[in-house]
Amino acid sequence: MNISLSYIGKRLPRADALEKATGEALFLSDLKFPGMLYGKILRSPLPHARIIRIETVQAKRLPGVRAVITAEDTPGIKFSSVRELADKLPLEREKVRFIGDEVAAVAAVDQEIAEEALALIHVDYEELPAVFDPFEALKEGAPRIHENGNTALRMEKRTGDTEKGFQESSLILENEYWTQPTAHCCLEPRGCVAHWKSDSLTVWSATQIPHVLKFDLAYALGISSRKVRVIQALMGGGFGSRLCLDPKEIIASILSKKIGAPVRILNTREEEFKISRIRYPFFIRLKTGVKSDGTLSAREAKVVVDNGAYHEKGAAVLTNVALTCAIHYRIRNVRFEGLLVYTNHVYGGAFRGFGNPQITFAIESQMDEIASRLKIDPVELRFRNANEAGDRLFTETNIPSCGLKACIEKAAHAIGWPHKIHEDEGLGIACVAHPGGGHRFYKFNAAEAHVEIMPGGEVNLYSGASEIGQGANQSLIQICAEELGVRPDQVKIILSDTDLTPYDLGAFASRTTFVHGNAVVAAARDAKQRLFEFAADQLEVDPSDLFAREGKIFVRGTPGKSIDISQVVQVAYFQKGTPISGYGHFVDRLSFPKDPLDYGDMFPTFSYGAHAVRLRVDRETGRIHLLKIVAAHDLGKAINPVMAEGQILGALAQGIGFSIYEKLLIREGNVWSDNFRDYVIPTAKDLPQMETILVEEEDPLGPFGAKGVGEPGLVATAPAIANAIYDAIGVRIFDLPMDQTKIFRAIRHQSQKKED
Amino acid sequence: MNISLSYIGKRLPRADALEKATGEALFLSDLKFPGMLYGKILRSPLPHARIIRIETVQAKRLPGVRAVITAEDTPGIKFSSVRELADKLPLEREKVRFIGDEVAAVAAVDQEIAEEALALIHVDYEELPAVFDPFEALKEGAPRIHENGNTALRMEKRTGDTEKGFQESSLILENEYWTQPTAHCCLEPRGCVAHWKSDSLTVWSATQIPHVLKFDLAYALGISSRKVRVIQALMGGGFGSRLCLDPKEIIASILSKKIGAPVRILNTREEEFKISRIRYPFFIRLKTGVKSDGTLSAREAKVVVDNGAYHEKGAAVLTNVALTCAIHYRIRNVRFEGLLVYTNHVYGGAFRGFGNPQITFAIESQMDEIASRLKIDPVELRFRNANEAGDRLFTETNIPSCGLKACIEKAAHAIGWPHKIHEDEGLGIACVAHPGGGHRFYKFNAAEAHVEIMPGGEVNLYSGASEIGQGANQSLIQICAEELGVRPDQVKIILSDTDLTPYDLGAFASRTTFVHGNAVVAAARDAKQRLFEFAADQLEVDPSDLFAREGKIFVRGTPGKSIDISQVVQVAYFQKGTPISGYGHFVDRLSFPKDPLDYGDMFPTFSYGAHAVRLRVDRETGRIHLLKIVAAHDLGKAINPVMAEGQILGALAQGIGFSIYEKLLIREGNVWSDNFRDYVIPTAKDLPQMETILVEEEDPLGPFGAKGVGEPGLVATAPAIANAIYDAIGVRIFDLPMDQTKIFRAIRHQSQKKED
Repeated sequence: MNISLSYIGKRLPRADALEKATGEALFLSDLKFPGMLYGKILRSPLPHARIIRIETVQAKRLPGVRAVITAEDTPGIKFSSVRELADKLPLEREKVRFIGDEVAAVAAVDQEIAEEALALIHVDYEELPAVFDPFEALKEGAPRIHENGNTALRMEKRTGDTEKGFQESSLILENEYWTQPTAHCCLEPRGCVAHWKSDSLTVWSATQIPHVLKFDLAYALGISSRKVRVIQALMGGGFGSRLCLDPKEIIASILSKKIGAPVRILNTREEEFKISRIRYPFFIRLKTGVKSDGTLSAREAKVVVDNGAYHEKGAAVLTNVALTCAIHYRIRNVRFEGLLVYTNHVYGGAFRGFGNPQITFAIESQMDEIASRLKIDPVELRFRNANEAGDRLFTETNIPSCGLKACIEKAAHAIGWPHKIHEDEGLGIACVAHPGGGHRFYKFNAAEAHVEIMPGGEVNLYSGASEIGQGANQSLIQICAEELGVRPDQVKIILSDTDLTPYDLGAFASRTTFVHGNAVVAAARDAKQRLFEFAADQLEVDPSDLFAREGKIFVRGTPGKSIDISQVVQVAYFQKGTPISGYGHFVDRLSFPKDPLDYGDMFPTFSYGAHAVRLRVDRETGRIHLLKIVAAHDLGKAINPVMAEGQILGALAQGIGFSIYEKLLIREGNVWSDNFRDYVIPTAKDLPQMETILVEEEDPLGPFGAKGVGEPGLVATAPAIANAIYDAIGVRIFDLPMDQTKIFRAIRHQSQKKED
Repeated sequence: MNISLSYIGKRLPRADALEKATGEALFLSDLKFPGMLYGKILRSPLPHARIIRIETVQAKRLPGVRAVITAEDTPGIKFSSVRELADKLPLEREKVRFIGDEVAAVAAVDQEIAEEALALIHVDYEELPAVFDPFEALKEGAPRIHENGNTALRMEKRTGDTEKGFQESSLILENEYWTQPTAHCCLEPRGCVAHWKSDSLTVWSATQIPHVLKFDLAYALGISSRKVRVIQALMGGGFGSRLCLDPKEIIASILSKKIGAPVRILNTREEEFKISRIRYPFFIRLKTGVKSDGTLSAREAKVVVDNGAYHEKGAAVLTNVALTCAIHYRIRNVRFEGLLVYTNHVYGGAFRGFGNPQITFAIESQMDEIASRLKIDPVELRFRNANEAGDRLFTETNIPSCGLKACIEKAAHAIGWPHKIHEDEGLGIACVAHPGGGHRFYKFNAAEAHVEIMPGGEVNLYSGASEIGQGANQSLIQICAEELGVRPDQVKIILSDTDLTPYDLGAFASRTTFVHGNAVVAAARDAKQRLFEFAADQLEVDPSDLFAREGKIFVRGTPGKSIDISQVVQVAYFQKGTPISGYGHFVDRLSFPKDPLDYGDMFPTFSYGAHAVRLRVDRETGRIHLLKIVAAHDLGKAINPVMAEGQILGALAQGIGFSIYEKLLIREGNVWSDNFRDYVIPTAKDLPQMETILVEEEDPLGPFGAKGVGEPGLVATAPAIANAIYDAIGVRIFDLPMDQTKIFRAIRHQSQKKED
C-alpha cells in the first residue's frame, strides 16, 4: 500500500462517546422490563459446612414473593469454564465451600421484599473444619474440600535443559514472591436479566463472552443451546470480571422460567467484593541462572495458586503463566510447575493480565537483583537479553514483531534514566511481554465479519466482537472504513447478541483488534471488490485501476475522475438489482502440542512494553510519592492512538492500585474489605504524572499491523515500582501490595539489621 | 431432487405461534420506554382551507406539555412513495386539503394532556370551496386542490391492435362499474415510537417496509439515511396499510429531537377510519370484444380513481391495474387508460390486491354477461380463454406456470356446479390472476440471505424479509431447514431491523416467499457446501456423495453411515478453527419497457385462482345468505399448507367484507363511519362454509416451486358473489358493496320494470 492512511492511526472520537457523555447510554442496571422481578441469592455464612435442611415455607408466604428456589429446583449440573473441571453448582446441594456460596434464591416484586424473604429462609448447617492456606490445604489430614482432594490441578511444562542451563550459569538466584487477592472494582456491579418467554430464554448480561455464555448457560440448564439468546448489555469495563458463566445467570433463568416473568439479579457492592471472582493470589518460587555477562541461561518457576473453593479460570491462568514466566528474554531452558489448590476462600477468575502481572512482578524484581549482583545497569541487563522480531521464543513460536528494545530505550529516556534530581529519589524499570491475538483455549481462535453496503452508502458491519468499554466498536469501524474507503461515520457496527452475530469466543487475551480486525479487513475487501466492479463500469475503466477513500472511488493516475460510493451503490441496487455485501473470515495458524508437557504455539502475536518509574519514599513514614510513570508500549500499529493511550493509562492506574494500594482483606474466609473505604483504589488525585509512548512495531499478521493493548499496560507496573523503591531506599519488597505499613516495617527491619 | 421433502409442504406450527397464543408477544402498543412521551396530531376540521394563523402559546403553557410543533418546526420537505410525485408535508403550512390533514402536533407526559393541549391550539382558517367527486374535480372551474391542477396522473398502456380486435368481434360489451373506499381494519392501530438519542434516530414502527421507510424518513427529515434506524414492530396484519411513510413517523421524530425523549404516536380507532390510507375507489369503464365461440379478442379499460388529497400509492396501483385488466385470459389486444384525480377526500394507499379486486370485479362480472349473451356456460367460457403455462401474456411476458384451468375445474366441482339444491339458490364463479414475486417499482427486486451455523448446530438465518403476520418467518425457516437439511427448530431467523438485515423493499406484491425464499435457498446451499467438505473429511467419503436431512448428514447408498450436523460443526469450529456460514442472493431477470406506453416485464411470476359461490337471496328483504364459498388457488408449491390456507381464508373473509358489507361513509369529506358499529366487517359468525383448495403448479423459478398467496385470495370474491346473485335473482349489481339495501332496491326496480 503506497497510499497514506485516512483513518488508521487517527485520533477519532468513539462512535459511542456522545451517548456515554450525555448519560443517554443504558447500562445493565438501567434496563427495565414490564413485569420484571428482582432476584436475590441466599449465601452461605460459613466457609465450610454440610447443608442439613433448607426451610423455605415462611419465605414463600411473604407477600410480594413470587418464587423461592433451592438446589431441588435446579438440574444439578456442575459447570465451569473448563467443562472437565466442572465442580460448581448454581445452588449447592450438599455442602457449602466458601462464605458466599449459593444456597437458595428468591424473586420478588421489589428488592426490599426479596431481601426480607432471604431472611425468612432457614438453613441448618453442620459446620466443617475449613482451610484457608493452600500449603495447609495440601497437608495430609487437611479438611477435604472436594471429593478428589485439595489439589485442584497440577501443570508442568518444560523446554530445553534447565539442569544444563543452571550448570552453565555463574549466578543462580532463587527468590520467593507473594501476590495478593484483588477485586476488579468495575463501577457497575455484575448482574443479569433473564427472561423465559414461550419456549426460549433471553439473557441480558454485561458479559465479555456472549456466545460462550450462551453455550455454557444452556449446558448448565440442561437445555439446547438454540433455546438461549444472550444479549450483551452495555458495560463500562470488564477487566476479566465478566469472563465466565456466573451462578447468577443460571439462577435468574430458573427463577424466570418458574414465574414466567423477567428476573433481574444485580450484585450489591458488598457482593461485588465478598463473593465475586478475584485475581488469583500467587506464591512464586523463581529460580534463574545467568552467565557473568548477564545472559540468562535457565529458569525454573514454581507457582502455587490459591484456587479458592471452586474451579474457574485457574487452569487457563496457569497456562498463561507457564508461557509468560520466560517470554521477555532469550532463555531456552525453561521449566514451569504450577499447582492450583482448593481452599475455603472465595474463588478466583480472569483478571486483566491473566497471571502475567503476578509472574512479571517476580521476574522483573529478580532481574534487578541480578543486575545488582552482576553490577550491570538494569536497563542494560534487560537490553542484552531482550527478544527481537524474528527470534524464536523458547516455545519455538516465531516472534513476528517485537519492539521490546525500543520500549526499554524510550521508557528509560523519558524517565531520565539514570539521573536523579533529588537524592532520595528512586528510579525503576520493568518490562512486559504479553501474548496477544487470542488464545486457542477452545482450539478455536477465528473470527468472521459481514459487510453490507446499503443504498444510502451506509455500511452495516456485523462482527462477533465484544465491546466491553475498550472501544472495540470504534477500532473495527476505523478498520472497516479504511479498508473499504468510506468515512467512519458511514459505518454502523452490529455486535453483542448471539442471535445476530457470528460465533465468537469473546473479549479477552487482547484478541479483539487482531482477530476481528483481520476478519473485518477481509470482509471489507470482499465488498470492495464487488463495489469496484460496478464503479469500473460507471467510470469506464478497469477495476484494478480504482481505489477508494473517504467515501469516494478514484481512478489511479486520473486525479479528476471520481465517483461517490453511494452513487455506485445506488446504481448497483436500483439499476442492476444487485445488493453489495462482503464476507471475511480469519483463522490463526497455531499448532498444538502433542505432549502435554510441551508448550506448542499458544498465541499468534506478542505485545511488549517497558514501564519506568520515578518516586520518593518517606523514610519516616514509609509513604511512597510516585513522581512519574512512563509506559512505553509496542502494540503494533495503533488503530486509534487516543484509545490506545486510554487503555494504557487506565491499566497504569489499575497497576498502581495492584502495586501499592489494593488487597482484599480476608479473615477466616470472610472478605471484610467489602466497600471502597476498606478496599482502596487510586483515584485521579492519587496518580502521578503518567506518560504513554506508543512503539508501533507493525505485526505482519495484524490488521494494518495492529496487535493488542488491552492487558499489558498493567503488567510491568508493580516490579517497576518495587525496583524504584529498592533504588530509593535499598529495601526490596517481595510481596504485594507494597503499602505504607509494609514499607515502614521493612525500613525499620533494615535499620535494625544495620544496628545489629 | 429424488429425495422426498422433509419440511416443505408440511403443516408445521409457526415459530411464533406460542408467544402469540400466550399473549407474551409484544406489539407496538405494548412498547414502553423510560421517559416516553405521548404525541398527538392536530388535524384540519375542514376539507379545504387556507391556514391563516396558528396560535400555540396556550398549549405550550399547559403543564405536562413538552413540545408543540407546526410546519415552522419541520424541514418542509414534501414526500410520497414516488418521490417525483411528492405533494405532502408532514405538517401543512399554507393549505389543508382534507378533513384530517396534519396541522400541528404536541408531545406530553400522557395521552390526556396531549389531547387537552390539542384543544388549546387555535388555528384560523380561510375556508375554500371543496370538491369530492373526481369527475367534478376534472371540470373547468373546479376548486384547484394542488397548483398543477386536479389531474394527479394520467397513464396509458397498450399492446396489440384493439381497433382490429373489436372489428373481429361478434359481440362488444361495454359496462361501467364502481367500487367503494374501504378501510384495512387492522386490529392494532397504526403508530410509531421515535427516539432521537445522541445524533441518531431510532423508529419502531409496525411497517411492512422497514428499509424503505428508513430512507424515506431520512429524506423527509433532510438528514443522512445512516442516522436512521427502523425497527419493525411486531404486527398482526398489514394488508398494505403499513406500506408507506406516514406523517406520524416524521412528526414523532421531530418531536423526539426537540425534547430528547422517545415519543409515541398511536392512532385512535377513529383516526384509523377517518384519516388513514384507504382502498382507492374506482370508476371503471370496461369494453370487451368477443368472438361468437367466446374467444376474447380485445379489451379497453378506462379507470378513474379518486386519489384523495395527496399522492400515495395511486400511481403504482394504476400500473398494477394496467396489467391485471387483461391478465387472466388470452387477449392480445389491450388498451388501458388510467386517471388519478385529486379530490378533497382522505387519500388512498396500498391495500391487499392493489387495484386487482376493483378491476377483477368488473372483468369477471362482465365475463358472466358475455356468457349469458353468448349462451355459454360461465365455467366453460372461462376455461376456453384461460391462460396456460408457457403462454406469453399480452405484455409478452412468459408465464412460467399456470394452474388457472385446474382452479376453475376444482372450484366448480367443489361447489357442485351447475347443480342447485334449492330453487332460489344462485351459483357464481370468478377467476383471479395475480402477479407475484415482487414488482420492480424501484427497479430493484432482489434479496439476500446469510446463514450462520453455530457450534451447537443451531442456524442463524439473516433475511431482509418482513414478517407482517403472514408467516414469512415460518416459511423461510422451513425453506432453510429443507435446503440445509436441519430441523426447523434449529433455525432462528433474524428479520425486521434496518441495522441488522440486508436492504429490502418490504412485504408487498406477494413477493416474500418467492424472492426471499430463493435467497435463503442459495445461502443454505452455500453453507451446506462448506458443511459437506468437513463432513466428507470425517466420514471419509466424497462431498458429492452426501445429503443432509433433519439435522444429520448421510452417505448416498450407505444407509448406516451418518453424522449429526452439530458434530460436524463442532469439529469445524473447535478442531479446524473454521466457522461455517453461507451467503445467498436472488435477483429477478425482468426487463423494462423503453416506451412508457409499453408494458415490459413487470413481475416474475403469476398466481391464479377461482372462487365459486353458492348463495340464496331473500327476495323480500334483499338479504344474501352465503351458503358456501370455494377458493381454489394456484400458489405454486405450498411451503406450509396450513399457513397458505390461513392466508386464503383470511382474504376470503376480507373479500366478503369488500363484496357485501364494507364502505367508508363519507359526507362532504367527513368520514363518519369511524367505528366498528358504522363500519361493519364480517365476523366469524357472518361467514359461510369456506373451502380452500391448493393447486400447486410449481414455478420453475420459485423456491421449491413456490409462488405467492398473500393477495389473490381477496380478488375474485366480489365478482363470484355478484355472478351468484345474478344467477339467483337475475339482478346484476355494478357497484360495490352489494349490500342488502342495494339488492332490495334492485329487486324492486326489476319488479317495477316487469310490471311496466
